[in-house]
Amino acid sequence: MKFNIVRDQLLNALNDVMKAVSSKTTIPILTGIKIDVSTEGIRLTGSDADITIQTFIPTEKDGQQLIQIDETGSIVLQARMFNEIIRKLPTNEVEIEVTENYQTRIRSGKSDFHLIGLEPNEYPMLPEVSEENQISIPGDLLKSIIRETVFAVSTSESRPVLTGVNWKVTEEGLICVATDSHRLARRIVTLDNLPKDVESVVIPGKSLTELSKILSDSSTPVNIYMTNQQVLFKTEDVLFFSRLLEGNYPDTNRLIPETYQTTVQINGKELLQAIDRASLLAREERNNVVRFSTLDQNQIEISSNSPEIGKVEEEIQVQELTGDELRISFSAKYMMDALKSIDGQDVIIQFTGAMRPFIIRSIHDDSILQLILPVRTY
Amino acid sequence: MKFNIVRDQLLNALNDVMKAVSSKTTIPILTGIKIDVSTEGIRLTGSDADITIQTFIPTEKDGQQLIQIDETGSIVLQARMFNEIIRKLPTNEVEIEVTENYQTRIRSGKSDFHLIGLEPNEYPMLPEVSEENQISIPGDLLKSIIRETVFAVSTSESRPVLTGVNWKVTEEGLICVATDSHRLARRIVTLDNLPKDVESVVIPGKSLTELSKILSDSSTPVNIYMTNQQVLFKTEDVLFFSRLLEGNYPDTNRLIPETYQTTVQINGKELLQAIDRASLLAREERNNVVRFSTLDQNQIEISSNSPEIGKVEEEIQVQELTGDELRISFSAKYMMDALKSIDGQDVIIQFTGAMRPFIIRSIHDDSILQLILPVRTY
Repeated sequence: MKFNIVRDQLLNALNDVMKAVSSKTTIPILTGIKIDVSTEGIRLTGSDADITIQTFIPTEKDGQQLIQIDETGSIVLQARMFNEIIRKLPTNEVEIEVTENYQTRIRSGKSDFHLIGLEPNEYPMLPEVSEENQISIPGDLLKSIIRETVFAVSTSESRPVLTGVNWKVTEEGLICVATDSHRLARRIVTLDNLPKDVESVVIPGKSLTELSKILSDSSTPVNIYMTNQQVLFKTEDVLFFSRLLEGNYPDTNRLIPETYQTTVQINGKELLQAIDRASLLAREERNNVVRFSTLDQNQIEISSNSPEIGKVEEEIQVQELTGDELRISFSAKYMMDALKSIDGQDVIIQFTGAMRPFIIRSIHDDSILQLILPVRTY
Repeated sequence: MKFNIVRDQLLNALNDVMKAVSSKTTIPILTGIKIDVSTEGIRLTGSDADITIQTFIPTEKDGQQLIQIDETGSIVLQARMFNEIIRKLPTNEVEIEVTENYQTRIRSGKSDFHLIGLEPNEYPMLPEVSEENQISIPGDLLKSIIRETVFAVSTSESRPVLTGVNWKVTEEGLICVATDSHRLARRIVTLDNLPKDVESVVIPGKSLTELSKILSDSSTPVNIYMTNQQVLFKTEDVLFFSRLLEGNYPDTNRLIPETYQTTVQINGKELLQAIDRASLLAREERNNVVRFSTLDQNQIEISSNSPEIGKVEEEIQVQELTGDELRISFSAKYMMDALKSIDGQDVIIQFTGAMRPFIIRSIHDDSILQLILPVRTY
């Protein structure tokens, strides 16, 4: 195996696959990155057994030669070491050559590295994912969907299935739901040509977070293939595989109230900032609970109280306030997460009394729904 | 106590005094910031017992009113909480009022905070530093002096005096020396009007690092006052006190060789980058040792070898090479620190054999000297 490559191209590709490599892995070969050189180009693979990322650099792109292949072949190199070496090389031209016993030589300018590689046949095979049942979503929309839901997954392993986001194909469209049983985030995406055979899947939150870092902000479609145990996200240059979570995802529809007693329409950004300030004091008590109270004259008050440190009160003008008076307490963090996912737009908040879950939606758009369970404080 | 202030002014001043406040302090009152309001303006004080920083905001500056004082007085407020509250306030106008029992009210826009303050009389007094024996150094030069020496202080408490930088007034000028007994950094500064009565002092490295963060890059002079136990750095707005380290600083002059057997003149930046690359492999073995060898034809070679991972070699063209052949090993980190302190200029390196300390200087300037002890590897 021997080739010359433009360093920046190799660095970009490495940057993507490095996201799958974990230093905590117990499988030694997975501390490495697999390099496969064919006459068409170079394929890099990184994996932590849960997530596998593969990128491809073609020998030529837009008429420009990126790689000169002298000899094809495969090798596995220590991921972090290889990445750092490539990053620090003195010139933008790199020659990589593998000789006997996986001895790998990396040359650039007057730098001459000799690395001891690993047996490429020991590297695990890619998961098999059939290319039927395809969903196609523009990259920027997919990024939004992840941002609007993934923060609400559970961080506790006591119910593993809740550490993932449930994706379900229905007649309404694709429904994405995450909940840690204290709050819930739901995003409905209407898409054409949804497959009919796909079952509901649960994608680990961590996988979606990593995927999001790789996606560009363009509307170029990402093709998604789901099977029983794996999901594959396919962009122009990258294949992103993730295992799926096993177990039945709970039916969350029954959590969402159908009638409301108090409805508030308010500027989401002002509310977010007021809660952020109130949480400064609430945080010190460890529970981070703030209070929301309706006042007369179309105002609400955000407050918190920490006997040792002090208290804070802030009034906010609302755009509309209908229904019953209300005093309710909730986690400042959950509310801030929910408001951030709606991106500072004007929001409608609908309450069913101080002890029942309440929901937050954008006034412009019904596709995002955030639900929060209040905290009993009195 | 009651005043109104422009928030940005308060934030700037807080930003400086916060650098002295440590969350690790065992003295409860030092978790706070002291605020003293007089008719002239507001003084903020933060301290961790070793370092004390005081800033002053005048009521008026350049004809612009910054503060409106309604009532003078003093209070101590929890530093981190106060800083975060001020940072997150909704408007640029802040009113702060202290009523009975140190109850403190902070208002801005519709935000209304009530904090429980601490007794200002419990806050320690400022160290006493006589304003005799003044040294005056431009701020940007003082910053350079710190950058060129402080990295070489010892991080081990086994000889506490080595955790500081020794400042000594001599006929040559101000001599600043730091050493951890494996390497040494020396900076000589020629200054006019040096005081004659000042003894040699040892300033804690940590204090100088914090001071450096506060200094601006302007040439406005910083006045420095040294006594037996304290040093005071005085800029236009800030008083920075640090305790001094006790104990005799070792005489380091005898460490510096007087004759040399090999002299190399080389581009400092190229050498730095080659050592950075070689250290990628050297680091894995934990000792981080690289080898420097003279070659014929005005070249040297930087190399390192890690039996488990691989090896690297790199040749560098030198500008001049005189004296004996040499193979020497040293800590990549020490060499990189030394070269960084000389800022990528061309350097002269003078060796006295593979087992003796060697020195590094800029070709332009004798004022910085870096010395490194080699490592025995064969």
